[in-house]
Amino acid sequence: MLMTLSQITARLGGEVRGADVSVCALAPAAEATAEHITFLANPKYRSEVQNSAAGAIIVSEKNAGDLHGRNLIVAADPYLYFAQVARLFHPAPAARAGVHATAVIDPSATVPPSCEIGANVVIGAGAVLGEGCRILAGSVVGEHCTLGAQCVLHPNVTLYCGCTLGERVTIHSGAVIGADGFGLAFAGDHWLKIPQTGGVVIGDDAEIGANTTIDCGAMGDTVIGRGVKIDNQVQIAHNCHIGNHTAIAACVGISGSVKIGAYCLIGGAAMFVGHIEIADKTSIGGGTVVTRSIKEAGHYASCYPLQSHKEWAKNAVHLRRLSEMYEKIKDLSKHRD
Amino acid sequence: MLMTLSQITARLGGEVRGADVSVCALAPAAEATAEHITFLANPKYRSEVQNSAAGAIIVSEKNAGDLHGRNLIVAADPYLYFAQVARLFHPAPAARAGVHATAVIDPSATVPPSCEIGANVVIGAGAVLGEGCRILAGSVVGEHCTLGAQCVLHPNVTLYCGCTLGERVTIHSGAVIGADGFGLAFAGDHWLKIPQTGGVVIGDDAEIGANTTIDCGAMGDTVIGRGVKIDNQVQIAHNCHIGNHTAIAACVGISGSVKIGAYCLIGGAAMFVGHIEIADKTSIGGGTVVTRSIKEAGHYASCYPLQSHKEWAKNAVHLRRLSEMYEKIKDLSKHRD
Amino acid sequence: MLMTLSQITARLGGEVRGADVSVCALAPAAEATAEHITFLANPKYRSEVQNSAAGAIIVSEKNAGDLHGRNLIVAADPYLYFAQVARLFHPAPAARAGVHATAVIDPSATVPPSCEIGANVVIGAGAVLGEGCRILAGSVVGEHCTLGAQCVLHPNVTLYCGCTLGERVTIHSGAVIGADGFGLAFAGDHWLKIPQTGGVVIGDDAEIGANTTIDCGAMGDTVIGRGVKIDNQVQIAHNCHIGNHTAIAACVGISGSVKIGAYCLIGGAAMFVGHIEIADKTSIGGGTVVTRSIKEAGHYASCYPLQSHKEWAKNAVHLRRLSEMYEKIKDLSKHRD
Repeated sequence: MLMTLSQITARLGGEVRGADVSVCALAPAAEATAEHITFLANPKYRSEVQNSAAGAIIVSEKNAGDLHGRNLIVAADPYLYFAQVARLFHPAPAARAGVHATAVIDPSATVPPSCEIGANVVIGAGAVLGEGCRILAGSVVGEHCTLGAQCVLHPNVTLYCGCTLGERVTIHSGAVIGADGFGLAFAGDHWLKIPQTGGVVIGDDAEIGANTTIDCGAMGDTVIGRGVKIDNQVQIAHNCHIGNHTAIAACVGISGSVKIGAYCLIGGAAMFVGHIEIADKTSIGGGTVVTRSIKEAGHYASCYPLQSHKEWAKNAVHLRRLSEMYEKIKDLSKHRD
Repeated sequence: MLMTLSQITARLGGEVRGADVSVCALAPAAEATAEHITFLANPKYRSEVQNSAAGAIIVSEKNAGDLHGRNLIVAADPYLYFAQVARLFHPAPAARAGVHATAVIDPSATVPPSCEIGANVVIGAGAVLGEGCRILAGSVVGEHCTLGAQCVLHPNVTLYCGCTLGERVTIHSGAVIGADGFGLAFAGDHWLKIPQTGGVVIGDDAEIGANTTIDCGAMGDTVIGRGVKIDNQVQIAHNCHIGNHTAIAACVGISGSVKIGAYCLIGGAAMFVGHIEIADKTSIGGGTVVTRSIKEAGHYASCYPLQSHKEWAKNAVHLRRLSEMYEKIKDLSKHRD
Repeated sequence: MLMTLSQITARLGGEVRGADVSVCALAPAAEATAEHITFLANPKYRSEVQNSAAGAIIVSEKNAGDLHGRNLIVAADPYLYFAQVARLFHPAPAARAGVHATAVIDPSATVPPSCEIGANVVIGAGAVLGEGCRILAGSVVGEHCTLGAQCVLHPNVTLYCGCTLGERVTIHSGAVIGADGFGLAFAGDHWLKIPQTGGVVIGDDAEIGANTTIDCGAMGDTVIGRGVKIDNQVQIAHNCHIGNHTAIAACVGISGSVKIGAYCLIGGAAMFVGHIEIADKTSIGGGTVVTRSIKEAGHYASCYPLQSHKEWAKNAVHLRRLSEMYEKIKDLSKHRD
């Protein structure tokens, strides 16, 4: 695919400066050649972009002066514009309508002819798929699941019974949606499993990463809001509610019945204890253990600072006697006064 | 299913107070209506339960007075009783005996006719299944695995060769049992893999969560005790021994050759270094890094307390010079004396 | 298989002392009997090995004196030698050449007759496999993937389109290679997904653990070097580069565009923020959060020391006011001077 800069701005807005050259793809500044378009969003990369052989550059009005004499598309938010151009060059593949000969579809399931059903897919009794869904090789759609239009299950996804997906939900390989929550009652000398009878409800345009797990509710549902983006290997326990458009990086663990607000940013490997609430637009640093509700939006953190092992070992000893140190200081202050 | 309170107490014990009404399901206090039964276990929810429209309530003798005039089942442990009622209303589904046409079963495997073998299941040579097992779509049972009666493998589970499961073991989707332990010897300029020749032995009534991994032993077995409950995305390395009835929350990682006692409670995302032993009935807080053996039962923790990013950054600087602070205090104390 | 000690040293070097007995397998010192060979590498296990009933023992020259009168193989590095003996007794299984009747192979894929293609395997259009690959039950090889000779995909592995594997790469069950990186641009009120158009390139002799995820690059590739060993449940984000012969223990998370050098050792559950570089031969302790580049090889750590919950709670309070304590000490010192 070859597009001129003006063909791009006709679709996405922005303003062409310099020659209206043709480009065939995006590329990082360091690797781009004359047929590529690249972008300058973070000023840290200014000189790398200045030295780039790219045929054209996406840049903000503010930084356009740094690229004097180059062919530009000037846009309000170059990073967002870059994303939009990438989507022009790489539109999501449409469903290749049809059912593979090896797929196993229960006669009571509803699968529109516009859907792509891959090899060895299994679709359970009473499941209902919307138009244009892509269910790829080896995925299992449990009984009575409902999928909106244009959902994509990559290979080897598992949906337990009774999951409800909105439209355009994408789930990556190895993800497991709707497994039993970890509900146990202690019966004197052993654990009694509490049947997990709720479902999982996932909103429109949500995306779920590879090998992520989202458990069904104990009673009532686990709810993933509209436009929520979840990375790989995230664990979301029973009865959590994740607010609309919240983004959750990889390796995060969220205990049962946590309510996270809308537009939150959750850093990688953050962990949440159960039964807490996080305000809208809260940002949590990577590796943070969230031990209590957060009522005020802001940026929160709790990770232990990195040191050489030798320095760390020296300090860690004293961390174990911090309260002792505190008392000592108090005592010293008293004597001085 | 509709049951009167006296039908329930006839099965489970406990005492009916008020009208012997019929209920059709459990429900959380806030959502329950007249046909539901709910419960009061944690006094924190007292007013929520008092205001509930539930037709009946499970409660302890001690708290029954708070629910004057309501229809009650009085039980010694309302949470446990709730679990038992849930199991009455939602018994585990029995095997739908039969082998799906697409399943691939090695002729040398033993699969009783009472088993349910789902679509695209693969059962390897010499595998032996007990009565009434349910092996669901896409699961793979490796060669020479042995499963006791009534085991359940949810869809897309993988058992490597030579795993041994007791009776009524449940394994959730995406779990991988018996993959090679991470055993390497350094050969000057590259790593040499050490063949992992042990197995995995899982006791009766154990439950393994979605996408959890339990490696086979290097030599000798990895052992999961009777009644052990393991949540999602837990990693258990080669030659670990997990004692009977220990419960392990999600995202926990346990390094090689760790021995955890019986009746332990391991909080989410806790991590264990290798070759340590944990006493029976030890409780480990969420996010704790367990860096040494624990010889005395008790509650242990090590997570970094949550703060606003600004406060955290201010303190983290000083954490790096804690030993310096300690020396300073010692010095000040000396001068004072 | 029965081998005399001299047959072993003929293959692997080392020197026989005592009788040239026959052994049939390796065993841990405590479990070995006369037909087993065991080893002494860590002096901590000296008395256990001395008391072992093993027929023969692998030991270094330095420690051979401790095992006077026993049948020995004296080797420079007993642990490495043990690994080599283990590989003699347990060679990796060769491919059982042939394609299972239920496998689905696109006509445009290249699959040499020497390959073993298991039940329900799916191989996409344009994929090219080398000689002697083993693709086990339920694995999915995406379109245009390239695999070198003798690769092994254990059951239920997923390779997205366009992955490139060197020779003798082993991937364990549930691993997902090439899923979309977590690339998002914020569009005012929702997230716009950035198409992830790069690939994953994995070097010769790499091994990838169960349920590990390695994302494709955003633009350009994610690169795993030669001889890299990755344990279970590791997450490697888009555009990471992992240097040759680096070993990564379980539950590690590596954010986008991280470059880790060669011969590094990454402890379990370590986490890396994005866009940093780690020098060759760096060692990172388990549970460490790596928040910045490391330019000098060495051993680094950051984990919070374990305590009883009571002690921890007492100290954690003061950790929140560490900078306050620091100021106080400074103030006390000033007044004293």
